[in-house]
Amino acid sequence: MSAAGAAGGGGADVLIRGGLVMTMGDDGAVVEGDVRVVGGRIAEVGGGLAARGGERVLDARGAVVLPGFVQTHIHLCQTLFRNLADDLALLDWLGRRVWPLEAAHSRESLSASAELGVAELLLGGTTAIVDMGTVHHTEAVFEAIEAGGIRAVAGKCMMDHASCPDGLREDTRASIEASLALARRWHGAAGGRIRYGFSPRFILSCTDELMREVAALAEAHGYFVHTHSSENVDEIAIVAARAGARNVLALAALGIRGERTVLAHCVHLDEAERRELAAAGTRVSHCPSSNLKLGSGIADVPALLADGVHVSIGADGAPCNNRLDMWTEMRTAALLHKPRHGPTAMPAERVLAMATRGGAEAIGLGHELGQVRSGFLADLQVIALDDLLAGPGGTLASRLVYATERAAVRHVLVDGEVLVEDGRLVRWDRAAIAERAGRELAGCVARAGIS
Amino acid sequence: MSAAGAAGGGGADVLIRGGLVMTMGDDGAVVEGDVRVVGGRIAEVGGGLAARGGERVLDARGAVVLPGFVQTHIHLCQTLFRNLADDLALLDWLGRRVWPLEAAHSRESLSASAELGVAELLLGGTTAIVDMGTVHHTEAVFEAIEAGGIRAVAGKCMMDHASCPDGLREDTRASIEASLALARRWHGAAGGRIRYGFSPRFILSCTDELMREVAALAEAHGYFVHTHSSENVDEIAIVAARAGARNVLALAALGIRGERTVLAHCVHLDEAERRELAAAGTRVSHCPSSNLKLGSGIADVPALLADGVHVSIGADGAPCNNRLDMWTEMRTAALLHKPRHGPTAMPAERVLAMATRGGAEAIGLGHELGQVRSGFLADLQVIALDDLLAGPGGTLASRLVYATERAAVRHVLVDGEVLVEDGRLVRWDRAAIAERAGRELAGCVARAGIS
Repeated sequence: MSAAGAAGGGGADVLIRGGLVMTMGDDGAVVEGDVRVVGGRIAEVGGGLAARGGERVLDARGAVVLPGFVQTHIHLCQTLFRNLADDLALLDWLGRRVWPLEAAHSRESLSASAELGVAELLLGGTTAIVDMGTVHHTEAVFEAIEAGGIRAVAGKCMMDHASCPDGLREDTRASIEASLALARRWHGAAGGRIRYGFSPRFILSCTDELMREVAALAEAHGYFVHTHSSENVDEIAIVAARAGARNVLALAALGIRGERTVLAHCVHLDEAERRELAAAGTRVSHCPSSNLKLGSGIADVPALLADGVHVSIGADGAPCNNRLDMWTEMRTAALLHKPRHGPTAMPAERVLAMATRGGAEAIGLGHELGQVRSGFLADLQVIALDDLLAGPGGTLASRLVYATERAAVRHVLVDGEVLVEDGRLVRWDRAAIAERAGRELAGCVARAGIS
Repeated sequence: MSAAGAAGGGGADVLIRGGLVMTMGDDGAVVEGDVRVVGGRIAEVGGGLAARGGERVLDARGAVVLPGFVQTHIHLCQTLFRNLADDLALLDWLGRRVWPLEAAHSRESLSASAELGVAELLLGGTTAIVDMGTVHHTEAVFEAIEAGGIRAVAGKCMMDHASCPDGLREDTRASIEASLALARRWHGAAGGRIRYGFSPRFILSCTDELMREVAALAEAHGYFVHTHSSENVDEIAIVAARAGARNVLALAALGIRGERTVLAHCVHLDEAERRELAAAGTRVSHCPSSNLKLGSGIADVPALLADGVHVSIGADGAPCNNRLDMWTEMRTAALLHKPRHGPTAMPAERVLAMATRGGAEAIGLGHELGQVRSGFLADLQVIALDDLLAGPGGTLASRLVYATERAAVRHVLVDGEVLVEDGRLVRWDRAAIAERAGRELAGCVARAGIS
C-alpha cells in the first residue's frame, strides 16, 4: 500500500497497461501505452512502463483509458423514484410524485437512494458529480458518497419560500444553519474528495434573504452554489413577475453567479443572460435527456458555447431521465442540436471534452482533474470497445460518443482507488444495494401515500 | 426436433419459463408465467406450464418476455461504415463517404457488413427488419439474412436516374431485371421468413418509369416497396421543382403508396401529405436518431399518429446513428417529441407498441407477429431487467423504454429458434464476424480511395 497523497485516496498503486490513452489534453494526444498511478495521482503516461512490486495491474488491452466523467447536475435523493414519474406534465411530476416522495424520505430510504445512484454512476464511468440533496437527512447522501468513493460537490436542498410544499418548507435561518453544519462536517472530507455546495432549489423556492446569504457565505468559505435556472417557460414567467427580471439576471442580482456557481438547465435564455453567464464565468449544466423528458425544451448549447459560456453535462435525477448515464447524455447532447445548427454542430470530440475536462473545470479542478496527465488526480475509466458496435472505423471520440454504452465500462478509479473492476463494484455488493432499494422504495411510497 | 410449421423455422420446441410476459395484446395483459413454442409458433401462454420431453427450457425468472423488435428501416450494407461519416453535412456524408464506400463494396465486404448488422440486431432483440441493400451484390445481404436467422423484407437498392453517381447509376431495365431476379430467388425463402421489397433509393435517384413499373410489379406479385421520403428540406425543394409536388404526393402519383409501402423518415410533411399517408395506409418508418444526426429535423410523429398514419421505428444505417439498436430508438422516440407536444406525448406504452406490434403490422404480419399470443410466430426476446436501472418502481413499459439497454437482452428467438442465448449468438461466432468486418472494411476504404 502506498501512502495516500494530499488529495489522494487509499488503495495500492496501479498500473493500467496496454490501452489507448485518450489524454484529453490540449493537443488531443492519444497514447498507446500505460498509465501509472501512485498515491492517488497519475505518475506516468507512456509506452512500455514496467510493473513495480506491489502495484496492482489492470489490463487495458483493446480498451480505451479515459478520464472519468464528471456529471454536474445530479439528484441522488431521487434515484429510488426512477420510473415512478414518467410521461407526466411538470406540475404533476413535481406535485404528485417527486415532492411527496422526497418529503417521505427517511434517513434509511435516502441512504438507499444515494447508494443506488452512486453505484450506477460508478459502473457507468462517472467519477465525480455535483449533487443536490433533499431538504432533510442529507447527511445520508454524504455518507453514501464517502462510502461509495465517488468525488462530489454536494449539499442539502434549501426551500424556505412560503410557496414551498408542506414537509419540505423550511425556516430561512434553520435552512442556512443546517447547510452550514453539513458544510463544516463535509467540506474537504475524504482527503478533499468531498466538497460542499449550497443548493437552493431554484429561485422560486427561496427567499431573497436566503439567496443573498448563501452567496455571501459561499464566497467567504469557498463553497459552491448549485441551483436550477431557466428550465421551463412557466417558471420563467413567474420569476419575471416576481423578480422583475429573467432568471439568470435575477440570480446574479442576488449574488448567485461566478465560477463556483452551477446553474442546471438554462433551456430558455435571452442574449443578456448569455452575456452575464459568460462575463461571470458561471457554470451551466446541460441536461439534455431531462429537458426532453419533462418537455422543457432544447437548450441552445451551441449558442452558449459560441458566446463563451462554460457548459458541462449532467443526467439530473433518475425520475426525469431515467438513467444517470453519461454515455446516454453524451450521445443525446451530440445529436440533439444538429437539427437546429446542422450536422457539424457539437462534434463528438467537443462533447467528450465537455463530459470529462469540462466537468472538471466546472467543479474548480481543471488544473488537476479531467485529463490523463502526470500529476493529475487518478479519476479514470477503462472502456472495452464493443467489437461489433464501436470498431474498427472512425475516430475514438466518434466510437465512444455515438456507439458506446455503459456496459462497455470495465474499470473505474477515483483518487487512484479501483472502485469498479471488470464491471463489478469493488467496495459494495450490488445485489444488496438493489435489494435494499426495493425495500426502502416500498416504505417511501407507503409514507408518501401515492398510488 | 419438431416439424417446422408452415412459416416456422427449425430448432427444438422451447419452453420459456417463469417470466413476466408482456403480451402486447389489445388488453395490455402482462402474464406471470411461461411461453411454450412448438414448431416455430407460440403454442401456449400461461402460468405453470410443465416442460415436455425434448423441449429446450429457457430461464426467464426475473426477466421480461416481449415480442422481438421490428425495425422498419435498415441498411445492412452500411454497417461496415459505422463511425466513418460522423459530424458531416448531408452532401459530404453522401458524396464523400457513403456513396463511394457503397460503390466500393465487393461481394465479400457486403457480406461482412450484413453479418455485422444482423449480429448486432439479434443481440439487441431485433428479430425482423425492412432492409435496403445497395445497388450491386445484394444477394450477399440475403445470404447473411438467411444464415443469421433474422426475419426480413429486403431488396436491392435501385438508382437509375442520370444524376446518380458513377459506380452506382444503373440502366432502368437492368435495375428492374436484377430486382426481379432477386425477388424470384428470395421472396418466401427460409420458410417465409424472407420476403422481397423493391428499394428505389428515393424519388430523386429514380426515373418515373422505374417508379411506375416498381409499383405495378409490387402490386402484381405481393412484394413490398421501401424508399426514403421527405428527409431533408433541400431534397424536398428539388423534388418540388422536378415533380411539381411534395414527396409523398409525388410518390403517390407514381403508385408508390399503400399498406405494403414503407417510407422512411417523413420528417417534413404538410397536411395534404399526412392525409394521403393515412388514406392509403402507407407505412412510415420513424428514424429519430438518424434524423438528428444528419440534422434533418424532427418528424412530427404525434401529429402523424393523430391523423391516423401508421408509424413504426427504424435505426437506419450505422453511419447515421451509429447503432442498430431499438432500445436507443425507443428512448429517443419517446423523449424527442415531448418539448413540442408536452411530457405526456409519446408515452412508453405507445412507443413499445410501435417497436413491436407496430413493426409487425408494417410488414403485413400484424395478424401473426408482434404479440405473445397463441398461434403467433415465435419471434421473442427475453430481457433480464437491470437490478439497478430498471427496477423496481414504475410500469414495465417505462422500465423498458426509459431505463433498459441492449445489454439486458438475454435470449432471442425467431421462428421459434433460439438465435441468442445468454447474450451470445448461437449460429455465429461473434469474434469471427468482428474480425472479418475489420479486414473487409480496410479493403473497402482502400478501394473507395477515401482518407
